[in-house]
Amino acid sequence: MHVTLSATLAANEDIQRRRRAGQRVLHLAFGEAGLPVHPALRARLAEASGENGYGQVAGSPALREAAAGYWTRRDLPTDPDLVVCGPGSKALLFGLLLTIGKDGPADIVLPRPSWVSYAAQAEIIGVRPILVPAPPGEGGAPDPDLVASAVLHARAQGRTVRSLLVTLPDNPTGRLARPATIRRLAEIARELDLVIISDEIYRDLVHDPGAEYLSPAEVAPERTIITSGLSKSLAVGGWRLGTARLAHTPAGWALRARLLAVASEIWSSAAAPVQHAAAYALTEPEEIVRRVAESRRLHGLVARAVAERFSRAGASVATPQGGFYLYPEISGFESSADLAHTLIERHGVGVLPGSAFGDDPRTPRVRVATSLLYGDTPEQRLACLHADDPLTLPWVAESLIHLESALAGLAPAGAPERRRMGVLTPAHATP
Amino acid sequence: MHVTLSATLAANEDIQRRRRAGQRVLHLAFGEAGLPVHPALRARLAEASGENGYGQVAGSPALREAAAGYWTRRDLPTDPDLVVCGPGSKALLFGLLLTIGKDGPADIVLPRPSWVSYAAQAEIIGVRPILVPAPPGEGGAPDPDLVASAVLHARAQGRTVRSLLVTLPDNPTGRLARPATIRRLAEIARELDLVIISDEIYRDLVHDPGAEYLSPAEVAPERTIITSGLSKSLAVGGWRLGTARLAHTPAGWALRARLLAVASEIWSSAAAPVQHAAAYALTEPEEIVRRVAESRRLHGLVARAVAERFSRAGASVATPQGGFYLYPEISGFESSADLAHTLIERHGVGVLPGSAFGDDPRTPRVRVATSLLYGDTPEQRLACLHADDPLTLPWVAESLIHLESALAGLAPAGAPERRRMGVLTPAHATP
Repeated sequence: MHVTLSATLAANEDIQRRRRAGQRVLHLAFGEAGLPVHPALRARLAEASGENGYGQVAGSPALREAAAGYWTRRDLPTDPDLVVCGPGSKALLFGLLLTIGKDGPADIVLPRPSWVSYAAQAEIIGVRPILVPAPPGEGGAPDPDLVASAVLHARAQGRTVRSLLVTLPDNPTGRLARPATIRRLAEIARELDLVIISDEIYRDLVHDPGAEYLSPAEVAPERTIITSGLSKSLAVGGWRLGTARLAHTPAGWALRARLLAVASEIWSSAAAPVQHAAAYALTEPEEIVRRVAESRRLHGLVARAVAERFSRAGASVATPQGGFYLYPEISGFESSADLAHTLIERHGVGVLPGSAFGDDPRTPRVRVATSLLYGDTPEQRLACLHADDPLTLPWVAESLIHLESALAGLAPAGAPERRRMGVLTPAHATP
Repeated sequence: MHVTLSATLAANEDIQRRRRAGQRVLHLAFGEAGLPVHPALRARLAEASGENGYGQVAGSPALREAAAGYWTRRDLPTDPDLVVCGPGSKALLFGLLLTIGKDGPADIVLPRPSWVSYAAQAEIIGVRPILVPAPPGEGGAPDPDLVASAVLHARAQGRTVRSLLVTLPDNPTGRLARPATIRRLAEIARELDLVIISDEIYRDLVHDPGAEYLSPAEVAPERTIITSGLSKSLAVGGWRLGTARLAHTPAGWALRARLLAVASEIWSSAAAPVQHAAAYALTEPEEIVRRVAESRRLHGLVARAVAERFSRAGASVATPQGGFYLYPEISGFESSADLAHTLIERHGVGVLPGSAFGDDPRTPRVRVATSLLYGDTPEQRLACLHADDPLTLPWVAESLIHLESALAGLAPAGAPERRRMGVLTPAHATP
């Protein structure tokens, strides 16, 4: 086993160390939502401070009921007994990797690039991921035209492949797979008898509320497992609360039993007071819906603004559609590690190399997380959330200038002089 | 993989179901501490309700510092950087099983009987436990005289054995391994180059504060990992907070890196507000020390009283020395499952069969957990904690009568008529 500390968590700890050492570092490396806890959730956590029992492995009835309601309101009718909660969707994904195969862990198709932990979790238990690139311009889904041959090839080699995974919308690319892609994947999954794991933890953070969102659970309900959590939309990553929705089929019920078995032996349950607060959040009262909407707007504004800075500096970057990530490519570097290294060492800008997401190490792409730009204090972050134009807040503007300077210094030899100078001119400091 | 829902958690859920269906069930099957959260911990959790960041995988610096202090006060000087916290010692034990072997999971020596989850965790990742009986009259430690041959035998078969585990004091037997046993195990571990995992989650609940307690970390500091948590001594099992103390050696540091790597990919961290409260608890302020002492006294009183009931009814049972368990044997049954089944089906007494703890299924032993006798409400439980004689509180006395009746009905044919009648006579209801 050659697993090392999760790349995102390791980068976060590295940047914190640099900051403690007095370095000025722009932290664009970590997928933390960067916003304060909503006061109603704080109150719910506090009122549950007396809840100390182990409770049910799958989560409290109130929590599972609320999670079922959450999905039902999204046209995915859900039986609370097919909801399994845990201490983060990360733990649930690990449990699913262990249990999706009836006869033991089986290989899985992942989009390339994809979140750092999918492949790392697989490696821990000896599962070999099959990395399939996303369709051009998309992210978070393996290209349906390539999945069948990849799976058949692996099977011909004697490997057992039981599942494929999508991330809707995606981390690291910030892109949302098209409904046509999901439909095609559902067909292929059916043909190949694959379970689909749909990681929808960023679902409520699709920037355009009118965007067409298709979960594979709508088109392949018999074989889709959705995972989600509160870490992103409600910014409580440190509370560790994830949810999974299993398929309403005999196989879904059997998987539930296996998943609960390993859950009971690895983590028991999510923290009881957190479950109580999460149950409230997942009923989606108006104040929580509003907070999620405000967060979505902020994430979208800032992610697009950062993408624009990269684009102006000559990077090739697709407009982020959800969450708080973008995935620019900057030519002139030998590898994504080289690019990321140059950014942190020479320019004090922390990002993650595409190689951490399973991408070709020679392609100079990095994942840029924009959510830690909102400020260093709860007050600054809240001000961002409620500002008409958060980009003009001094600390945000200052960070964007830092970024522009860094990118200007990075611009490959062929980039237009005009642009390189432009971003260094104070008049351009405020977007 | 044939793992099923953790036997303790499954029994708990079964009993809750029976109760909801209106059955009167004496719940002696679940190792929940059965006491309310101390108000100071509730307040600390509430004040940390704004803490939502992922934080460090190993736990916050304050928490690790506090845990290091906890061990240092027990004559085990500890570097906070060698403390790894997680969402329960269960998760940490799983992580250790995955990482103790440098080159992948390796087999482990477990005492027989031992806590249900050790062997179940091993099975999840394909590790084969080597079950070695405890020395006569002891519990929680494999008999040192049998360990060497068991390990050498396994190694001769090509198996890799890297560790042995002790539980001090023990679940399920409630017994504390003797210092001489621990010393001998330490020698053997050194000879065989085994890591020792010492599960000391019940350490602060050794009933006699004057009892001689020897952690293997004192006699084999270079190879001992201690795990602990707040679930038992402070009754916050549902909060999910465990701690591990690694050895101050190059191997300990290397293990730390591997453990943090898998932790970062499976669970990230314990819930941040829980970490804050735990940091307070582990500094051991006077109010917390007093609460632990009160709990210890109550657990001891009730566990011994229940053991006495079993003994009077003809069972063979060693006096519990720590925690809230006893492990009686009642002859006249074909198996431990038969005994446990009879107790729940005919007498409404829920216990766990010895087979769940890896014991010989044909030996009619059951694990009896006594901590849920304190009552069904926080008020009752608190009254128990502060009563001069908790056994005389009506709800406790009533449960003991229920138990006495059940045991009287169970008594094997050869048991003295006097005793069987005695426990049914109202005059004997109050111990």
